This record gives sequence, structure tokens and C-alpha cells, in this order.
Amino acid sequence: MLATDKANSGGMSVLVTNIGELTTQDGEVGTLHDAAVVVNGDRIAWIGPAAQAPAADERIDAGGRAVIPGFVDSHAHLVFAGDRAAEFAARMAGESYTGGGIRTTVAATRAASDDELTAAAGRLVAEMRRQGTTTVEIKSGYGLNVDDEKRSLRIARSLTPETTFLGAHVVPAEYLDRPDEYVALVTGPMLAAAAPYARWIDVFCERGAFDGDQTRAILTAGAEAGLELRVHTNQLTAGPGVQLAVELGAASADHCTHLSDADIDALAASDTVATLLPGAEFSTRSPYPDARRLVDAGVTVALATDCNPGSSYTSSMPFCVALAVREMGLAPAEALWAATAGGARSLRRDDIGVLRPGARADLVLLDAPTFLHLAYRPGVPLIHTVLHNGVPQ
Amino acid sequence: MLATDKANSGGMSVLVTNIGELTTQDGEVGTLHDAAVVVNGDRIAWIGPAAQAPAADERIDAGGRAVIPGFVDSHAHLVFAGDRAAEFAARMAGESYTGGGIRTTVAATRAASDDELTAAAGRLVAEMRRQGTTTVEIKSGYGLNVDDEKRSLRIARSLTPETTFLGAHVVPAEYLDRPDEYVALVTGPMLAAAAPYARWIDVFCERGAFDGDQTRAILTAGAEAGLELRVHTNQLTAGPGVQLAVELGAASADHCTHLSDADIDALAASDTVATLLPGAEFSTRSPYPDARRLVDAGVTVALATDCNPGSSYTSSMPFCVALAVREMGLAPAEALWAATAGGARSLRRDDIGVLRPGARADLVLLDAPTFLHLAYRPGVPLIHTVLHNGVPQ
Repeated sequence: MLATDKANSGGMSVLVTNIGELTTQDGEVGTLHDAAVVVNGDRIAWIGPAAQAPAADERIDAGGRAVIPGFVDSHAHLVFAGDRAAEFAARMAGESYTGGGIRTTVAATRAASDDELTAAAGRLVAEMRRQGTTTVEIKSGYGLNVDDEKRSLRIARSLTPETTFLGAHVVPAEYLDRPDEYVALVTGPMLAAAAPYARWIDVFCERGAFDGDQTRAILTAGAEAGLELRVHTNQLTAGPGVQLAVELGAASADHCTHLSDADIDALAASDTVATLLPGAEFSTRSPYPDARRLVDAGVTVALATDCNPGSSYTSSMPFCVALAVREMGLAPAEALWAATAGGARSLRRDDIGVLRPGARADLVLLDAPTFLHLAYRPGVPLIHTVLHNGVPQ
Repeated sequence: MLATDKANSGGMSVLVTNIGELTTQDGEVGTLHDAAVVVNGDRIAWIGPAAQAPAADERIDAGGRAVIPGFVDSHAHLVFAGDRAAEFAARMAGESYTGGGIRTTVAATRAASDDELTAAAGRLVAEMRRQGTTTVEIKSGYGLNVDDEKRSLRIARSLTPETTFLGAHVVPAEYLDRPDEYVALVTGPMLAAAAPYARWIDVFCERGAFDGDQTRAILTAGAEAGLELRVHTNQLTAGPGVQLAVELGAASADHCTHLSDADIDALAASDTVATLLPGAEFSTRSPYPDARRLVDAGVTVALATDCNPGSSYTSSMPFCVALAVREMGLAPAEALWAATAGGARSLRRDDIGVLRPGARADLVLLDAPTFLHLAYRPGVPLIHTVLHNGVPQ
């Protein structure tokens, strides 16, 4: 078992008290002051006024700090080798981002050993944990052949239960002139090899990646294999992906930067979450999605890092919260909700992203009197203590 | 002596080796690979290829990490009480920023005890240190009467030699209807009380603060009292401040967001540094200064945080580097230069912001193979080890 996956399985109870501000994301409780939380094992057992808190085996004095649910990062690409810092610097000097650089990472990933890939992904998960992320979704998508997609998902599964098969990330170099053969591979042997290690299937539905028909074929095959659906779509251009995601009942449509009115109407009338990834717009110097418009239309919005070596190599959910406030029109409370409860919705989980009895004991003490500081103090490491599965990290 | 001010006064030598990439900011040396640095006491004694490194008392294995000079944050307001998180949230909801909120902090600062102010400022200096800042300039400016400006500078001086008298931050509430009397106070008794604790004098030359004539009077009085000059100017509107700064030989003109062609020409022909503060534009949702245009015109540019509770409560120089690349058109190497050597120029220091024999042993090991990651991995805490005055922090 990895250090990052420890659970308080001994059933020890822990009282977290002297909390200055407690944001539960639980509609019935909301934000509390002078509150306390009791953890029992890996679950929250009790939340209420500090003066009424029951006894516990151990005690954590929050020192007046704000406490929030652990961040739920519902979109990350962590199984890869190499980095693309030089490509980033070139792009910042004016070169446009086309997504072609993914193939650079595919080559490096295929050439890496299992141990190298596992160590690199584990470092990123640990880095995320230190920044308050207690649940992370991890996609494959840099293998793009049967064996390398399978091993990517095997490695991902050692780090999180939220694993996503993204064989349809781009068409790899060796299939560039026969993309339909690649779709047949993805929906056939690659899916069969990947499915035992994956909860989700995802497709990059975009100009230069997969079109609407290909996306439909891949998602339908994934659903038939028992996987649930997510879609990368409308990042660089408008396209059919959002409405396809809604039609097929996908849990999440991710990016959603270029949307039509019909796309927004479709999302608002559905259970499909719009997962916004402002780190990608930051690092590709692209226009940001209009989160304000989505929230006002009644769309459920999540925030995630899109952590990957090409277009968004941040692992910081606090940074994404600050960008969502500065650039996407969300109030700080809306951005925090999207980064916790919103991420949980996009993963169809009700045991994370919220603090209430019975939920997982994933919570973060901030070096701040209020969660507002996540946006008010951008770039500052404000994570004081992380409890994951009831265990202080 | 504060923990943050420890020096390696015992003359112990330390070899930092296995450096993957060494950015010296020293024109004659540039960027080195497989380099080593030897520190002797609080100074750098030797830089060269690792294979040729001399022996030392202690050894730090950088593990292939990138090493850079410690950041020089040449513009910060750290002596204050309270915060203004609610004002920030209101501004993000559409309220415009006028600077009037400074008076809120003045009231809280005057009401705070010496111990409270010292502890709060010390916490911010320590927070900066953890983020790689080894030199910080600290301004007064939330006292705005003789006693509170004096004690603000006394506290600042306990934390840094780079202290700045900013009695002319805004006209305080009690002088609103008689600003000329306030200028007389600033240039008379307040300056006399402040000067023993200050290296610099600064004025906020801006609509709603001090006009060109008032700025000239205050800076001239400061120079006569032996202080060197800095100016806050052209943040919210174009105005006379930049050309006044150049005319009076100020070390730095800070903000420089709204500049005329004549302002840029004046800066380019002078030794006055343009200190850009992108945290302020981020947190006030304002247009960024055009750093690219300044550098191309031959202006010396510095980056600093402007850390303050109203308009820019970041303490993170890495965040400012990332913003300078994303939003202001600097290449990553230019942004790093501005955040180290540029800050040193704005403080007229040649012993910091650069790694060469004889310079202060202020250096940072990054959790990254190259400094490019400061912009490539925005928001991620990448500071692995900080040496300040030769002492690992």
C-alpha cells in the first residue's frame, strides 16, 4: 500500500477543534464558525459546535484556521515520462498550441520503465496531496497501444480508484494515415485490455483528435464494456462533443471553453457536469471558459487541474480556484464548491468533496482564517494540514 | 536576532553539488550544467564545474535540481494589521478598486500592538522565505502619523535593511480636507522620526493620492534627509510620476501600468528601474503592464509582489514570474532575471540577485530540472531548499 493511500483503518477517533471557519459544502449545514469535526476511522462521525463536541482518542487544534473538504481533482494525466518545458517556452514566445506535442510524450512514455512511470506519477500524487487534493482522477492516454495503455492504467489504479481509459487521446504517429484502424484498435483489443483497470472511458473530441462519429463509437463501446463516460471537448473549437456527452449520459464534459447556446442549454438540462480546466488556458495563453454564464444557466460546474506535461503542468487546485475567480467570473465560494463538491459530482461520488457524517474524512486545514484566502492570496502555499482517509499526511 | 536573519558567520564552507542547471545571472558565467557552488560563511566563494570543486566542511547534494539566486522582492508592504478578504470578494463581484480601502488597514494598524505588528510581519517574511525570497524591501505606510510610521519602520528594520518610508501612501482620513498640511507633516516631523530607520523614501503619485507637485516636495525633502528615492506611479492612470522619478534620480518607478511613449523613453535613458507588480493587476482584475515593450525599449525591469492586504496579498515571487510570462510578454529567462537581478538593481545592490564569488550566499534549489518550471508549473510550490546568508533555512 502506498503512503499516499493510508487509511485510518484502526478506527481511531480524532477531534479537530478550534476551527475558525468550517466549509462543509453540505446544504443542510453550510459554513460554521467555532465548529469541530470528529473523525472515526476513515469517515466523518460528527460535525457541530466545538462546545458540544464528543470525546475522541486524539485531538488536532486547528488554531482558528479555516477547514475545507479536500480538493477533488477530477481531470489529470499523471502517467507519463519526460517534460515539455522547452515547448512551453516556445509557445510563450508566440508559437501556437495544436496538441501535436502529445506525441512527444507518447514516445517518452513508451520508452520508460514501469518503475519510472510509477515513481513519476506517485511524485505528482504526493505533490497534489501536499496542496490539499485528496481525490484525483488519473487518465491513461500516453501509451496509445495495447500494452502501454494497459500498464498506464495499472499504474494509475495503484494510485486512485478513479482511473480513466483515454486510448482516444490522439491518433498516434503510426496510425496517422489510417485513423479508422486506430478507432477499431481502441474499441477492440485496447479496450479489452484496459477495462479491468478503468472505471471511466474518455475521448478527446476535437479538431485534430477525434470527430463526433469516432467519439460516439468509442464511448458506446466503452459503455458496453461497463465503463462510465467522460469527454474532453470544445477546448479549442466548438464541436459536437458537449451535446454528444449529454446524449450519451456522460458524467462530465471537460474543457467547455467554446460553447454554443445549445450546448449550454443541453448541459443545464442534464446531469452532465461541465469540468473547467483554467490551468490549460493559463499555460496555452487561451481565452478562459465563461464559468459565470454556465453557473447562471444552471449548469453544474467542476474545476480541475488538467495536470499534464503539455498544456497544463500545474498540480495546484488552489491556483485553479484563484484563476476561476480572477478570470472566469466565479465568486470565491462558487470556485471552492466547484473544486470540491463539483469535482465529486463529476465523478458521481457523494462521499467526497463534502464534510458530513458518513463522508470520507478528507479535509484540509488552511493557513488562513477563511477559504477566501485561496483566491485572495494567489500563489501562496496555504495548505497547513491534510487529513486523507482520516490520516494526517 | 530573528531566525529569518541567521548568517553563516562561523565561516563554515558548504559545497552545493550535483546541480542540474545553475542560473547565475552573472553575465560572464550565464547558465551552467553539472555545476557546483562553494559557500564560505555568508558569501559565495567559488562557482564552476562540479568535477573541479574544492573541498568544503559540508556538502549539499542538489540531486540534479535547478539552482537560482534567491528572489529579490523589492516592493512589499508587510507592517499592517487585519486583512481585507471581504473587500477582495466584493471587488471580484464587480466593485471597482479605488485605493480607498487603505484607510481600513491604517485604522487596524494603529490599533494593533507592537508585538502584533512584529509577529504578523515576521510571519510574512518567513512565508516569503519558504517561497525562495531572500531579500525583501518593506515599506511603512499604514501608520500615517508620526508615531505609527516610526514604529512601522522600526519593525521593518528588524526584518530587513531595505526599509522604505511611505508616509505619503494616502492622505489619512483626519487630513482629507487639508492635504497640504499632511504633506507638511510628512516632510517635517514624520520624516525626521522615520529617517533613522529608513533607507528609502517613497510616494504614491496617483489620482486620489499625491499629485506631481506634492510628490516632488516629498521626495526632495527625503533626499535632503539622506534617503534614496522610489515612487509608486502610473498604476491606475497616466501621470507625471515616471518622469519625475527619472528627473530626481529615483532607483525605481513602481507599477508602470499606464505609460506614455515619453515615459518609456525617459526610463530607457535613465538608471531608474521599472518595477512591475503583476499581483496587483491579478487581484484587482486590471490590465497588466506591457513588460515586453519596456524590455524591447531598453528599460531595466524588476518584478516584485507588492504584498499588501488590499490590492495584492500574494507573497509569491514564483507566481509573479508565471504571470509575467503569461500576461506581460516576458520570456521565462527574462522574468527570472527581473525577479532576481532586476530586483537587486532596483535596490541598487550588486551583492544579491546574482551568483558569483563575493556575492551573498542566497540561493534556491528548485524541485525542478530547470528554472523554466517556475512558469511552466504555475501555482506549484517548487522551492526545495533555500540558503540565506549561507544558512539552509
